[in-house]
Amino acid sequence: SLFLHYRTVILPNVKMDGMDGDVLKFNTNNGETEEDIVDPWQVVSTSATGVDYDKLIVKFGSSKIDGALLERFENVTGHPVHPLLKRGIFFSHRDMHEILNLYEQGKPFFLYTGRGPSSEAMHLGHLIPFIITKWLQDVFDVPLVIQLTDDEKFLWKGLTVSEARSLAFENAKDIIACDFDIEKTLIFNDFDFVGEREGLKCSAFYQNAMKVSRNITYNQAKATFGFIDSTSIGKIFFPAIQATPSFSSSFPEIFGGANIPCLIPCAIDQDPYFRLCRDVAPKLGYYKPALLHSKFFPALQGAQTKMSASNANSSIFLTDSAKVIKNKINKYAFSGGRATIEEHRELGGDCDVDISYQYLRFFLEDEEELEQIRKNYTSGKMLTGELKKKLIETLQPLIAAHQERRARVTDEIVRGFMAPRKLKYSFN
Amino acid sequence: SLFLHYRTVILPNVKMDGMDGDVLKFNTNNGETEEDIVDPWQVVSTSATGVDYDKLIVKFGSSKIDGALLERFENVTGHPVHPLLKRGIFFSHRDMHEILNLYEQGKPFFLYTGRGPSSEAMHLGHLIPFIITKWLQDVFDVPLVIQLTDDEKFLWKGLTVSEARSLAFENAKDIIACDFDIEKTLIFNDFDFVGEREGLKCSAFYQNAMKVSRNITYNQAKATFGFIDSTSIGKIFFPAIQATPSFSSSFPEIFGGANIPCLIPCAIDQDPYFRLCRDVAPKLGYYKPALLHSKFFPALQGAQTKMSASNANSSIFLTDSAKVIKNKINKYAFSGGRATIEEHRELGGDCDVDISYQYLRFFLEDEEELEQIRKNYTSGKMLTGELKKKLIETLQPLIAAHQERRARVTDEIVRGFMAPRKLKYSFN
Repeated sequence: SLFLHYRTVILPNVKMDGMDGDVLKFNTNNGETEEDIVDPWQVVSTSATGVDYDKLIVKFGSSKIDGALLERFENVTGHPVHPLLKRGIFFSHRDMHEILNLYEQGKPFFLYTGRGPSSEAMHLGHLIPFIITKWLQDVFDVPLVIQLTDDEKFLWKGLTVSEARSLAFENAKDIIACDFDIEKTLIFNDFDFVGEREGLKCSAFYQNAMKVSRNITYNQAKATFGFIDSTSIGKIFFPAIQATPSFSSSFPEIFGGANIPCLIPCAIDQDPYFRLCRDVAPKLGYYKPALLHSKFFPALQGAQTKMSASNANSSIFLTDSAKVIKNKINKYAFSGGRATIEEHRELGGDCDVDISYQYLRFFLEDEEELEQIRKNYTSGKMLTGELKKKLIETLQPLIAAHQERRARVTDEIVRGFMAPRKLKYSFN
Repeated sequence: SLFLHYRTVILPNVKMDGMDGDVLKFNTNNGETEEDIVDPWQVVSTSATGVDYDKLIVKFGSSKIDGALLERFENVTGHPVHPLLKRGIFFSHRDMHEILNLYEQGKPFFLYTGRGPSSEAMHLGHLIPFIITKWLQDVFDVPLVIQLTDDEKFLWKGLTVSEARSLAFENAKDIIACDFDIEKTLIFNDFDFVGEREGLKCSAFYQNAMKVSRNITYNQAKATFGFIDSTSIGKIFFPAIQATPSFSSSFPEIFGGANIPCLIPCAIDQDPYFRLCRDVAPKLGYYKPALLHSKFFPALQGAQTKMSASNANSSIFLTDSAKVIKNKINKYAFSGGRATIEEHRELGGDCDVDISYQYLRFFLEDEEELEQIRKNYTSGKMLTGELKKKLIETLQPLIAAHQERRARVTDEIVRGFMAPRKLKYSFN
C-alpha cells in the first residue's frame, strides 16, 4: 500500500476488506482493553476521537515530534515550521534529527513519497503528504521521487494493468497541481518504471528490489502485514517494491549511483513497510530512511467512520464544485455542537470530535484565527453553522485553485515529470 | 531455479543444500517404500539406476514420449527425431501434440529455455537443453528466447548482483557457442531485462510477472516448492519470474503483442514451475506452455552421487583440456564392468549403471554404433578400458570444437544476442 490512504478509524470489531481477504484478525477480548490496529490496510480504533497516537508511537517504536525537534527545525532551516507540523498532524518521526544534521552540514539527502492510485478521484486527505512534501522540498531544496504504486493496486484491488497505469497517470496530474518543481521532482509508476530506462543500460530499481526481497523472510512479512496462506506471492513480494525508492542507488539517472540518505513523509499506517526497510538497509550498505508520520484525515461523518472512495459523501473530493462542497459540509460534517442553540451557548462545542474544526486544523493556515475559532466554539460563542461556514469559505477557494492548476497540467507535462533524468539540486 | 541443473540423484536421506535451508523434508519411513523426490533444488532417489522416471510421469501428471509421438514428429516435420528424443533422454512431455498441430497448420509458436548462471564453468550436462533446443529451432524455424536467471542465483546462492550478472554474460558465450541463429534468438538475463527496453515505452515483462504473481497463492507455492517461514519473499516471488517468458506478450519487441503458444525443453526437475504456470495461463488469457522433459545427466561417479560445481571431478567441464577429459574418465567414470577381466568376459558389464555408456547415450550420434557398443559391453566382448576409450574419443573433439566456437564469441556478439529486437521467423 502506499502513502496516506487517509481512511479513518472505524468501529471496533469491524473487519475492513481493503486487504481482499488478507486482513489481520482483530481479536476482541470481550471488553478487555483493546488496542488500536494500524497497518497499511486497516485502521481500527475503539475511541470516539480515533486512534491513540501516543500509544502508537510506543507500539511502533518511533519518536514523538516534540517542541525541541520543531525548535531545532526552525533554527537549522531558518523557516517557521509548517502548520501541519506545528499542529501535531505530523506527530511522529524516525531519525529526523539525522536529516537536520545533514542539512546543517550541507550534506545531500532526498525526499520520497507516493500514492497508491486506486481511484481517479482524489480527496482532500490525499493532498496532505504532498502539501508537506512540497514544503519540505522548498525548505531543503532537495530532489524528490514520488512513487505511484499501480502494481500494488493491481495486486490488491483487482484492477487491470492498464486501468492501474491510467489511474497513476491521472493522479500524477493532481500531484503535479500541488506545484512541484519539475527540475527537482521525478514521478514514476512502477508498471512502467520497473522496466524502463531509455538509453541507460541498467535496471537498478529491479536489482535493488531483489536485494531487499532477499533480506526479508516470509516470517517477517507475515508478522508485519498479517499475510496468510491464501495471500498471492505478488502481494508477499510487494513490500520490496515499496522499500526500493528509499535507496538512492535505485535512481542512477538522478544520483549517478551515489549513496544518499532519504526522508519519507507518510501516514503512520505506512510505517510497517519502512520498519522492514530500515531493518534491511544496513545489510545492503544503504542508509536507513528517515520518516515523518502523519495522523489520519477523518471522514466527514466523524473520526470513527470509514472514509471510502465508493461513498462520495464521506469526503470532499478535489473535483467537487463550490456548491457540492457547501452541501456536503452542511449536510454531512459531523458536529461537536450541542442539540440546541441554547445548550450550545451554555456548554460549548467539542472541537476534538467536530469535523469542521478538524478539517480547519489541516487547511486553515492562520494560527491565531484557528486558535480563536477553537476558543469561541469551545465556549459556545461560535455556533456550528458559523464553524461550517468558515470551513466552506476556506475549502472552496483552495479546491478551486487546485482545479485551475490541474487543468493546466497537460499529458506532456506529466511525461516531463515522469522522464528518468538528472534532477537539479544544490549539493553535488 | 532454471533448466537442467543436471545434478544427479543422490543417496537417500541425504539433504541437499541447494535451497539454502528451504529444502523439503525427506521423510523416510524406516525402510518403507520411499518415493523419489524431484524438484528444482533436489533430486533424491533410492535406486542405483537413479530416479524412476515412469513413476515421475504418473506423479507429475505429464505424458510419456512414446513411439507414436516420435513417429508423428517425424511425419509432421519430415526430420528423423534427434537421438536425445529417440533414446528417451527426453522422455516426458505436456501438449507436444498441440505443438505438432500448430506446425502442421502453419501456425506460430516459439521456444523458451534457460539457465541459472551459478558458475562460470558449465559442464557437459548443461549442454543438453541447448542441444535439443538448437535442433528444435532448426527443425521448426521458430523464434527462441533464452532466460538467464541471474536473479534466481542471487536469491539462492548468495552471489552479489554483479557476480550473478557477470556469470550470466559468460554463460551466454557457451550458449551462443552451441550455434544458435542470432536472427532467431534472444538471450536475456533477468537483472538487465526486467528494467530495460531501449526506446520502447513499455515494461511488458514486469507487468506479466505481476499478473502471474497475483494468481499464485503462498499456499500453492509452498505446496509446489516446499517454501517455509524462513524463505525470503524474493524466493517466494521468483516462480513468477520464471513463468513469465512462457507468454509471448512478455516480448513485445519480438511478437508485437501477439498471443503465441510456447514450447519449453527443460529437465524434469523444472516441471513444478511450469505446472503452476500452466494453471495460471488460462486465467490471463494466455496459452499453457507445452513442455519437453529430459532425464538428469549423471555425475561421473555414478547416478547415485551428486554432481557438484564445486567438485571439478564430478563432471566434465566445457573448459577441460583433452588430457583432463582423458584422465577424469579413466580415473572417475563409474564402471558397470566386473572385478576381473575373466569375470567380465564371462558375465558381461552392466550398461544401466556404467557412466561411460550413459554418457555415450547423450553424445554419440551414431545409433548403430551405440547399439553395437551396448551389445558388446553387455556380453563381455568389450572391456571397460575400451568403453572408456570410446567415450574419450567422442568427447575430446566435441569439447574442442565447442571451445573453438566459444573463443570466437566476442562481447559484441553477446550484446547482439541480448539486444531486445524483432526476430526473424517464417510465419507472421
